[in-house]
Formats: sequence, C-alpha cells, structure tokens
Amino acid sequence: MALFLLLQPQSWTRELAQALITLRESLHPCSECGNLTDIDPCSICRDPLRERETLCVVETAEDLISLEQSGVHGGLYHVLGGRVSPLDGEDLPPDALNRLLRRLGEGSFKEVILATNPRVEGDLTYYAVLEVLRDRPIRISRLAYGLPIGGSIGFADRVTLHAAMEARREIQKSDSKRDPNQ
Amino acid sequence: MALFLLLQPQSWTRELAQALITLRESLHPCSECGNLTDIDPCSICRDPLRERETLCVVETAEDLISLEQSGVHGGLYHVLGGRVSPLDGEDLPPDALNRLLRRLGEGSFKEVILATNPRVEGDLTYYAVLEVLRDRPIRISRLAYGLPIGGSIGFADRVTLHAAMEARREIQKSDSKRDPNQ
Repeated sequence: MALFLLLQPQSWTRELAQALITLRESLHPCSECGNLTDIDPCSICRDPLRERETLCVVETAEDLISLEQSGVHGGLYHVLGGRVSPLDGEDLPPDALNRLLRRLGEGSFKEVILATNPRVEGDLTYYAVLEVLRDRPIRISRLAYGLPIGGSIGFADRVTLHAAMEARREIQKSDSKRDPNQ
Repeated sequence: MALFLLLQPQSWTRELAQALITLRESLHPCSECGNLTDIDPCSICRDPLRERETLCVVETAEDLISLEQSGVHGGLYHVLGGRVSPLDGEDLPPDALNRLLRRLGEGSFKEVILATNPRVEGDLTYYAVLEVLRDRPIRISRLAYGLPIGGSIGFADRVTLHAAMEARREIQKSDSKRDPNQ
C-alpha cells in the first residue's frame, strides 16, 4: 500500500488524507440505534418507510451492515456496541443495556430479534440481553441456527448438525405447501 | 496413485485388489433402511438401543454416515437412494417413496425428520416426500436452516441470512434460561 501511494500524484494523497480525517470526524454512532452515521439520527432511524414494531439487536455496526445489505430486515436496529467475551476481557459498554431498555420504553416495538453471532461470545451476549428483557411484555426471538443454505449435510460440522437437528421444525400439514424455512 | 502402486510389493497389490472385490460384493443396501451394510439388516436397524419412534429420512447413505458420525440422531434412518434434480436428469428411484410408506406402515414411528440437503435438489426431494406423507397421521419435521455455528453474521451469505431471519425462534420466557437452539 505504501508503495502504491508513492506512485500516485501528491494531490491524490492529500485528498485521501483529507478524506480519512473527514471520515473519522463526521461519522459517529447514531444517538438512537448506535449505527455509524454522519447525520443524527441515522438514515435507517429516519426512514419513514421502515416498520417500527420490530427491533433487531446486533453486536456491532458491522453486523447491522451485513444484515442490511442482505435486505432481510425491514424494521429498526439497535447496536449494542460490543459483546460479552470474558476470555478476551471484553464486555458490553456500561450503558448498553440501559440504552436498549430506554429505547424499548420510548418506541412502540412488539418484537425484539436478538441477532447475535452464532458463537460462544454471541451466546453470552444473547443471554446478557435476554436477562434484562425477560420481564418486559414484548416478544423476543432469535435468529435460527442450522444448516447454511447451499451447503450439504456431508460438509456440515458436528455442532451445526446438532443445532439443525435440535431446532428442527415441525411441518404444519395444513400449510405444508409453504415451507416455513423458505 | 498408479506410481504409488508400482512401488508396493506385488502381494500388497493383490490384497488390495481382493479387498476391492470383497467390498463391492459384500456391501449392499440394507433391506430395511437402505444404508450400506454387509449384514442384513444393517447394524443400525438391528441395534436394540436405538429408539424406534423417530425416522430420519436422508437422500443418500453418505448423508446417513455424516449424521451418524456427528451423533445427533438416536433413532432410525431411511435412505431414499437418490434425489429429485430435473436439471441433472435425476429422480428418486421408482420404488423409493413406496418403500418409505411401507416402512412407516410396518414400524411404530411417531416422527419423520426430513433431512434433505439445504439446496434446491434437497428442497425438491423434500417436497416429493412431503407430498406422500401429508395424509399420514405422523409428525413431520425438517432440519433447521440458519446460521452455521461458529460462523458470523458478517460472513453469512444473503440466502442463509434470509433463512435465519425467516426461521427465527420465539423465545419462551418461562423457559428462557434454556435456549432451544442450543
């Protein structure tokens, strides 16, 4: 990268440097959801077309971007801004759970989707959030774990096969033409 | 491989050749479940310790081996012996569905787990089997599709994220200490 920069005109490098400064100065967490944004609240929180009854809780803004790019969620997000990982000495930011509770108190959410990552740290984060939500009168759900689409049983690891078997879905016969997994 | 064989003693190659012939002659599909076996019925069908109320239906004996190695299923299996894939000109063997129905009629199964592969061919196979099971008084379930364990939201493809979001599980709060996905 350094060699590449040395081959560019000086003005180009100056523009890049300025862009980096602007990026760092203008992007900050959205005061509502914690997503990275240059305007507050962020474009997702301000979007009048998004439904405001489902809140998808993610660990980081990166997870939000992945979910958003795949277009799977039409509701709002909430970025915790960290994860629970005692082995790495990581924990949620001190006010993360209070921020979430405050947001739920202010909004008209009917469902919270806990979209933590499918690994140990994600599980710990999930339980930490679940703990504070348990007594709230709100529906709580979690992303499904199982076989990734396009994969095969032969290539799935043992833990994923366990999850896929444990979380197998009963097929409603009256509705069996429509597979709930699809 | 050919060069490797040429470096071995002749007796070794003769033994290998004999082993291949024996393998091909002695292994055949189990008359009950379709698993590959040298004794009929196969060791899984004969095992008195396996529960006989859950039947896991797979496409091929390879899938059975993968599931069996991961130890996720304590019941019996049924190998269809093929898959529905019109683009490849593949279909289930002519008697595959009748064999399955006959097996269900003879056994005391309470649940059929459809463990087809998480791809288009697996979906088509799933629907073909579902079609003949629909009117039977038996519980039907399907392996869960979703995020593979140990992965991350950021690396999941769009279709898998869709499946994980669609099939998200509602958390029962009374039982929320125990996550059904785990």
